[in-house]
Amino acid sequence: MGLSLVTYDGRMARWEPDARERLVRAALDLFSEQGYENTAVAQIAERAGLTKSTFFRHFRDKREVLFGGQEVLAELMVGAIADTPAGAGPLVAVEAALVATAKTFTDERRAHGPQRLAVIEGNDELRERAALKMVGFAIAMTDALKRRGVPELEAAVAAELGVLAFDRGYGHWLEAGGDFGEIARRTLRDVREAVASLQRAE
Amino acid sequence: MGLSLVTYDGRMARWEPDARERLVRAALDLFSEQGYENTAVAQIAERAGLTKSTFFRHFRDKREVLFGGQEVLAELMVGAIADTPAGAGPLVAVEAALVATAKTFTDERRAHGPQRLAVIEGNDELRERAALKMVGFAIAMTDALKRRGVPELEAAVAAELGVLAFDRGYGHWLEAGGDFGEIARRTLRDVREAVASLQRAE
Repeated sequence: MGLSLVTYDGRMARWEPDARERLVRAALDLFSEQGYENTAVAQIAERAGLTKSTFFRHFRDKREVLFGGQEVLAELMVGAIADTPAGAGPLVAVEAALVATAKTFTDERRAHGPQRLAVIEGNDELRERAALKMVGFAIAMTDALKRRGVPELEAAVAAELGVLAFDRGYGHWLEAGGDFGEIARRTLRDVREAVASLQRAE
Repeated sequence: MGLSLVTYDGRMARWEPDARERLVRAALDLFSEQGYENTAVAQIAERAGLTKSTFFRHFRDKREVLFGGQEVLAELMVGAIADTPAGAGPLVAVEAALVATAKTFTDERRAHGPQRLAVIEGNDELRERAALKMVGFAIAMTDALKRRGVPELEAAVAAELGVLAFDRGYGHWLEAGGDFGEIARRTLRDVREAVASLQRAE
């Protein structure tokens, strides 16, 4: 019990085997059973057999159980865009950005995915939060592309197409599993084909 | 003073010459001077020389001073997409959607625009609200395109490109004025050129 470690965001966490996973499981079950707005952090901790302070070592608040990891994803996207060779086109960089997030698409995350989506769908505030998460990714990728010298409008369009592919890829991955990087490559290709088809139609 | 009329949302409003405009002016001035979060409806009414109940005949809350009209704009977009001839491509329908909003881009709205944008930029919650307004337009246009039989992904992409053009068009219109319909046609053409350029770059 005395063993402590530094979590990815620099906070000290006491070692509780599977604490994070147990908290996510308890939170999603409670959100599903009684509604997100009716669930208190104390209840989540109790259901998980842990203390409130353990909860707060892992999450800032109950919303972070659903939306934690946004900054990590955005950083992975931005880092991959920065690392793409200088001569590559914007959509090549965007593809690299999506592929770079694949390591966060774990089996554990997939196991929680459908329940998480159902909770979000049932609550206006959470649906707005989910939409803003995508807006955040679009802004992050737009800025990263502009830093590569991509003109502003092209950067914004490429980022939006990337977010559409990311969002669709997440849905496909939840349904069928597999490597998210491969799935994202495929959905970005689908998006590009949709764009080409739109440009042809008059 | 006894004269009353039904407003666009069906509420009865007593005739107050320029009341709405005076309330917008007072609200924007107060938001700029002391911050959006520090401004109460009672102060806005007082500054405008009107009562709180007059405020509430025109606006649901102080946020609606900044974001009112979203439903009207979405309805104009959706109506124009539905009315586009059956054989026309999705981006033709999207262009019609943007052009259909032109009648709401009045001189009065333009006069308030820069101050309104500055207030929104200075407040996280308001920036999120502005982003969600654009998400709302994208969802409305996507659904309207799907009802025309446009495949889901093409509909989503066309709607996103339309929202990018709308948002940029608004910025250009604030800067230079002119007919918003013409401006939106031009920014949508710019977006399509950016897309074509992205598709060529590898």
